[in-house]
Amino acid sequence: MEDMTFVLFGATGDLAKRKIYPALYNLYVEGKMPESISVIGLGRTELTNEDLQAQVEEALNEFSRRDVQSENIQEFLSKFRYFIFDAMKEESYDRLRKYIEDRESELGIPDNRLFYLSVAPRLVEMITTQLDKSGVSRTNGWRRLIVEKPFGSDLESARELNACLKQVFDEEEIYRIDHYLGKPMVQNLESLIRPNPILKALWDHDQIANVQITASETVGVGSRASYYDKAGAIKDMVQNHLLQLVMMTAVHHEKKLSPKQTEEKKREIMESLQPVEPENLSTHVIRGQYEEGELSGEAVPAYRDESGVTEGSNNDTFFAAKLCIDNEYWRGIPFYIRTGKRMNEKSTRIVIEFKKDTDDAGIVSNLLVIQVNPDESISLRVNMKDNSTDQFEPQYISFSDNSSTQPEAYERLLYDGMVGNSTYFAHWHEVELSWEWVQPILDAFEQDEVPLHFYPAGSKGPSASHELLEKDGFEWN
Amino acid sequence: MEDMTFVLFGATGDLAKRKIYPALYNLYVEGKMPESISVIGLGRTELTNEDLQAQVEEALNEFSRRDVQSENIQEFLSKFRYFIFDAMKEESYDRLRKYIEDRESELGIPDNRLFYLSVAPRLVEMITTQLDKSGVSRTNGWRRLIVEKPFGSDLESARELNACLKQVFDEEEIYRIDHYLGKPMVQNLESLIRPNPILKALWDHDQIANVQITASETVGVGSRASYYDKAGAIKDMVQNHLLQLVMMTAVHHEKKLSPKQTEEKKREIMESLQPVEPENLSTHVIRGQYEEGELSGEAVPAYRDESGVTEGSNNDTFFAAKLCIDNEYWRGIPFYIRTGKRMNEKSTRIVIEFKKDTDDAGIVSNLLVIQVNPDESISLRVNMKDNSTDQFEPQYISFSDNSSTQPEAYERLLYDGMVGNSTYFAHWHEVELSWEWVQPILDAFEQDEVPLHFYPAGSKGPSASHELLEKDGFEWN
Repeated sequence: MEDMTFVLFGATGDLAKRKIYPALYNLYVEGKMPESISVIGLGRTELTNEDLQAQVEEALNEFSRRDVQSENIQEFLSKFRYFIFDAMKEESYDRLRKYIEDRESELGIPDNRLFYLSVAPRLVEMITTQLDKSGVSRTNGWRRLIVEKPFGSDLESARELNACLKQVFDEEEIYRIDHYLGKPMVQNLESLIRPNPILKALWDHDQIANVQITASETVGVGSRASYYDKAGAIKDMVQNHLLQLVMMTAVHHEKKLSPKQTEEKKREIMESLQPVEPENLSTHVIRGQYEEGELSGEAVPAYRDESGVTEGSNNDTFFAAKLCIDNEYWRGIPFYIRTGKRMNEKSTRIVIEFKKDTDDAGIVSNLLVIQVNPDESISLRVNMKDNSTDQFEPQYISFSDNSSTQPEAYERLLYDGMVGNSTYFAHWHEVELSWEWVQPILDAFEQDEVPLHFYPAGSKGPSASHELLEKDGFEWN
Repeated sequence: MEDMTFVLFGATGDLAKRKIYPALYNLYVEGKMPESISVIGLGRTELTNEDLQAQVEEALNEFSRRDVQSENIQEFLSKFRYFIFDAMKEESYDRLRKYIEDRESELGIPDNRLFYLSVAPRLVEMITTQLDKSGVSRTNGWRRLIVEKPFGSDLESARELNACLKQVFDEEEIYRIDHYLGKPMVQNLESLIRPNPILKALWDHDQIANVQITASETVGVGSRASYYDKAGAIKDMVQNHLLQLVMMTAVHHEKKLSPKQTEEKKREIMESLQPVEPENLSTHVIRGQYEEGELSGEAVPAYRDESGVTEGSNNDTFFAAKLCIDNEYWRGIPFYIRTGKRMNEKSTRIVIEFKKDTDDAGIVSNLLVIQVNPDESISLRVNMKDNSTDQFEPQYISFSDNSSTQPEAYERLLYDGMVGNSTYFAHWHEVELSWEWVQPILDAFEQDEVPLHFYPAGSKGPSASHELLEKDGFEWN
């Protein structure tokens, strides 16, 4: 891996402490770091290098999956410098360029620069523009920009944001993080199917009845209420994470794809994804919101009673939809997606339901269940005869790997960013196409043209979500 | 189920106590017995009805998978009568007919009679002939004959035995027990594949590389040395059990087969099984014998040093072979079978190895492992990426059902015998074809025309057995 400077905007923020520093440390321990790396943390607070290093160490102690090792922690921390920075002031950028350059000479490393924007969305355009103007991003070596979600708040703003980034960086230099793409099981979809002919044989148009993707949470809106009340499940989960899971599932896994091929395949999937026609809005899309209910035996309030939520808000805390991908492979095989807060379980999973070829009593369809979160596992549901009753019973044969040796999503993604592999990032065309698919639904929600279905907190979501599948002869698995 | 008389020849024998009485009791508890049944146990020893009933109860206490229940044991035992019987004396049979008839009138049941011959092989022909001559087997109701293995000691004697039975019973009335056919996983092969399209998709000529059937034991010859030294693995295990497992695996599982269809399919398989050509005898067939070695840390003697074994015996305690089934489905897919005593593990299993379609490093072939004994389970071996090393590792996803609610082989087989379902019994044509396949090998063994390969007790068998597969690019799984 080439030596580089890692410029972290938002070095004192929550994401840095919870995810970025632990990821860097674990990569460091595993030798997945450049020989020489300059890590420069930026923030408005007045801190010394030693202050930042102390904060990093504290963050590692709290959040690293690996215990901090006394024999290497000092060397790791010695790579960090703190730089006082105000994104709104032009002169900050000139000083930053000088600071980076000095450190590059000091370490004798080339001007390869990775910019990580872990900042409020409203600052992204300004920082990018100024990086260019000040020359910080004008390097002889490579430069890359990692951007956190959200990427825009609707189709128009996403396009504007992208246009701005594009003035400074090429698409190949922009790494849009969707941490669902860093999850082991999502990354393993390809390496699960490809080397296993028996799974490849299953993964076939003629055998698959439908695909179901669920991302349910038990938590409510918590402290994010004021953001969430504007975003809703559709922006918070669907436009990004759920549609990314749809793409990753729908991509063919016949051979190993290059990052470029992955990008193209995902774009093709999104181009084949049929828009929801206005007349189908209330039948193919389910908007839901939780009412008061019970979770783990405790009463929890209705969404509308949460602090920070607008009175009488019609915001969606639940979203389900039927998707049709009109390409040769998936034509006629519906994708059902759903996500919700205050559901009965915390679970992200992809379920492939296979066609049944018998109506014999007690025989259920075969399923391939890819559990993404919180556990990681793969299961097949098969029909087994119970020899004491001679009845068929559904049984799950499963494999799970819950070892703590699993790198976290951010480790994978940071590593890929450092080596320049964009496979598991969101590329512009798919982001734009996702927004294009979501926008008419978003508009209809805002115009209240789609019914709002209530569901008790702690339940499996509104009954309308179950009817969505029942109409097609299926049920959520 | 129709009322009947169950006539058990060998009522004081080991098999009756270990298997038949426990099986009858468990069927009784589960209501899988006729309303009214007359069980008549025959033996030469002078016993009273009460003596037999006490022996049965004792056997149940020792061998039944289900605890004996005080509320029903007396009613169960009351069905048993003991009849003193000398198979060599004609007058025994006349008395027997009278005794059965009296009991039938007493109970008011029709003359449906199930004869179970749990006796020394040399007595089978005599008993069958006399059953007819005395009129015991001439009934207005149905009559069935259950025969234990061995069915002959070579092709000729098997044919003679069958000719004798055929003079009295029709093929449909003869139930040849092979208790491997009573094993849950063997019976479940059909009900495993048929209702599960995902397994059916795998079970395909284009996907299967080979089939491996193993029946290995850790025990030596023990007290059976004088019998075993004449029989060898080939008669003790191959002609019956292993070839039955080959047939059960090779039969198509696309739809539920009637007993008659099963019989036909098995016959077709055996007719397609290619004989081992004389020139292939020493390459396609491996004869082995154990030398001294170690098992579970204990030294065990060589076969030739076991008491009861002829000095310098060349008897086979290990047998392996490559089989070719020349029909449309299995052409080009070798079946490898092996069995041995004093092996490193006790295991009966059927392994389907699938073709690999990549030579990528670390990727192994997919396997479907059907464990028949001592545990029952189904596993799939798949390649999973270890995310900490980025290497592929073979992993097993498996399902097992080791509940004690599983009926034992003899329960299933006795029940099938009582209701007249011959699916899981050995039919004459397949027995004859098995002997036909085995006979030239047997002759070559006797003429010492096949090399004898020694293997240490506690090992995986002679190296020649591994070379048998290596020549084809495979290895035992």
